[in-house]
Amino acid sequence: MKNRKLLMIPGPIEFEPKVLQAMGAVTTSHVAPNFINSFGNSIELMRKVWLSPKGQPFIVAGSGTLAMDMAAANLIETNDNVLVISTGYFGERYAEICKRYGANVTILKTEIGATVSLTAIEKELASKKYKLLTITHVDTSTGVVINPQPIAKLAKKYNVLSVLDGVCSVAGEEIKQDEWEIDVVLTASQKAVGVPPGLALLVASEKAMKTFKNRKTLVGNYYADFTNWLPIMNAYENRNPSYFGTPPVNLIAALEVSLQFIIEEGIENRFKRHQKMALAFREAMLALELQLVPISKNNSSNTLTAVYYPENINGGDFLKNMSDNNVIIAGGLLPSIKTKYFRVGHMGSVNSNDVIATISAIEKSLKTCGYHFRNGIGISTAQDILS
Amino acid sequence: MKNRKLLMIPGPIEFEPKVLQAMGAVTTSHVAPNFINSFGNSIELMRKVWLSPKGQPFIVAGSGTLAMDMAAANLIETNDNVLVISTGYFGERYAEICKRYGANVTILKTEIGATVSLTAIEKELASKKYKLLTITHVDTSTGVVINPQPIAKLAKKYNVLSVLDGVCSVAGEEIKQDEWEIDVVLTASQKAVGVPPGLALLVASEKAMKTFKNRKTLVGNYYADFTNWLPIMNAYENRNPSYFGTPPVNLIAALEVSLQFIIEEGIENRFKRHQKMALAFREAMLALELQLVPISKNNSSNTLTAVYYPENINGGDFLKNMSDNNVIIAGGLLPSIKTKYFRVGHMGSVNSNDVIATISAIEKSLKTCGYHFRNGIGISTAQDILS
Repeated sequence: MKNRKLLMIPGPIEFEPKVLQAMGAVTTSHVAPNFINSFGNSIELMRKVWLSPKGQPFIVAGSGTLAMDMAAANLIETNDNVLVISTGYFGERYAEICKRYGANVTILKTEIGATVSLTAIEKELASKKYKLLTITHVDTSTGVVINPQPIAKLAKKYNVLSVLDGVCSVAGEEIKQDEWEIDVVLTASQKAVGVPPGLALLVASEKAMKTFKNRKTLVGNYYADFTNWLPIMNAYENRNPSYFGTPPVNLIAALEVSLQFIIEEGIENRFKRHQKMALAFREAMLALELQLVPISKNNSSNTLTAVYYPENINGGDFLKNMSDNNVIIAGGLLPSIKTKYFRVGHMGSVNSNDVIATISAIEKSLKTCGYHFRNGIGISTAQDILS
Repeated sequence: MKNRKLLMIPGPIEFEPKVLQAMGAVTTSHVAPNFINSFGNSIELMRKVWLSPKGQPFIVAGSGTLAMDMAAANLIETNDNVLVISTGYFGERYAEICKRYGANVTILKTEIGATVSLTAIEKELASKKYKLLTITHVDTSTGVVINPQPIAKLAKKYNVLSVLDGVCSVAGEEIKQDEWEIDVVLTASQKAVGVPPGLALLVASEKAMKTFKNRKTLVGNYYADFTNWLPIMNAYENRNPSYFGTPPVNLIAALEVSLQFIIEEGIENRFKRHQKMALAFREAMLALELQLVPISKNNSSNTLTAVYYPENINGGDFLKNMSDNNVIIAGGLLPSIKTKYFRVGHMGSVNSNDVIATISAIEKSLKTCGYHFRNGIGISTAQDILS
């Protein structure tokens, strides 16, 4: 049972009650005027949240992996060279996806918790003609963030399409898609966008759409094919119904509500709130003398934090204690260190109370597990930052 | 606004309040014990609803088209021969999907409203070695039903895999997957299964899974690849969490509720209720001297009915009148006759009151549009059957 346990995993997260009300509202026809309007509004609101006034949004039933798949399937043709800049599990996955569509994939990676240098990226881009590069903005497996702006700039310099996997960053970490000239920014609903899981979301630049339209071969994946979805997005944006597949009515109604909340908060305010919550949480972990998976503060994300268990603390015991303390956090995901760390999501509608409650539960659980630290040091460190 | 308008389109349909409550419930972690149990139960319940104790269920975020895509992508390899038995829009779509994965596709079709004969199917199966055939059980565009049992028998005789597109039939029309030896039965959540749109659902036979496991080439579609999803289905069925993509937690919780309702009603009772509701509706239309799209009662489905407008009645006016009378029905979908007919869904939790209310609104709307008929003849015809 969930009861009143606080959900602090890196997605799904705590959702706004009004978003959940939209989820549970009576389902209308997918061609009903109120739904057509919700769908059209969601498309327009995505452009605002993505800071991409010129981009083409897509809203499709599926998981975040479908969004990754859509970008790859529509932009890659057999024998294209693709550069994957990996900071963990999801970089590896993106390499696998790109290979599936016939790409020759080069992966750039470094030790766990670090990011590939711009020098290494430029060296690789200069070495041969790449069609596309992918960046995992925040790898949900490690909590490592990479700054996409200078990479997108390099992509531009070498005339390479840039795809930003923003599953764990959109509407949490700063992204200015048009200003930074990123060709695809993709995400899933259940992360910082704040909607229950089930929607793949992406915005494609004019250049990406042109590349897609100039394909010489059919898209390898039927369901992901922009050819099927583009007329639907255009129709609903023009407030006309159209049919390819039945849209996930309740999820899209919930999306409209959440995107509206994001715009009401102000996207810049939202980025700042995420920075502050993350800083408070991170500093609390460091005050408890725990080690973060990201090797520096510069590459620690603002949407989740990955923390190594102290030595001699059993992960399973710790997670069970956390649940007993009514806070749900996540275990590790990256195979090579899976049992050695935990992950805490702090994104979406997360507030100071959530952060403090989570740190409080971590302190209690660590204590029960036999770890020694100055009682309250985590909470007071966070409190200083949040006050 | 929907207000209290009755939703009688062929999906999404009217959903049970408890299903909607599950949709709007607070989202738990995808690895929370209560969700693991919901997912595991849903997998087990699917086997019961599909009457496929030996089948392998898949539950994936997506539309019904994704379910079609999954069956094709996982079972077809380049240059396989595929036979598509078409009764409308969705047969044509299935042909397109199969071609995308390299199949040589032969389409068997006949005039609108009719079904291809068994003789024609057997003749085609005997003419060359087919790998797979697809059947649209009920084509949502025409309301034509085809009996899948003898076709599956022919498929067996010629050692061809049979894929039943049951998007508009599963949990409404009689299907006994294991007894009839159908290799894949697929559907979407928002039809007779009774859950808001957003889930692709399918059950694969042991033979289908063996064919998949013996593939010589990678599945062309990454997101649809059984390789990614099979370990997840197995894990959750064994009540263990596992990760490929974040499952659509709220939709799966709602699925469990609806499948439980279906089992409580009894699957045979449910088939009979659908037959009775459909008969009442169809006979009412005939009593009003309207012409059905299916050319005979034998190929008229029990989940929806497609009806030609009377001559000189404008479809747009009629549909607007229906909405003014608080019943939402659907216009045409098959391109060649799109403006000439309407469609009424009568599936899922549909009851006598819904059917009578819909016929009442049709009578009123026809009258307003200037069509002449014996007042009340539709309603009384249905009432006789429903009493």
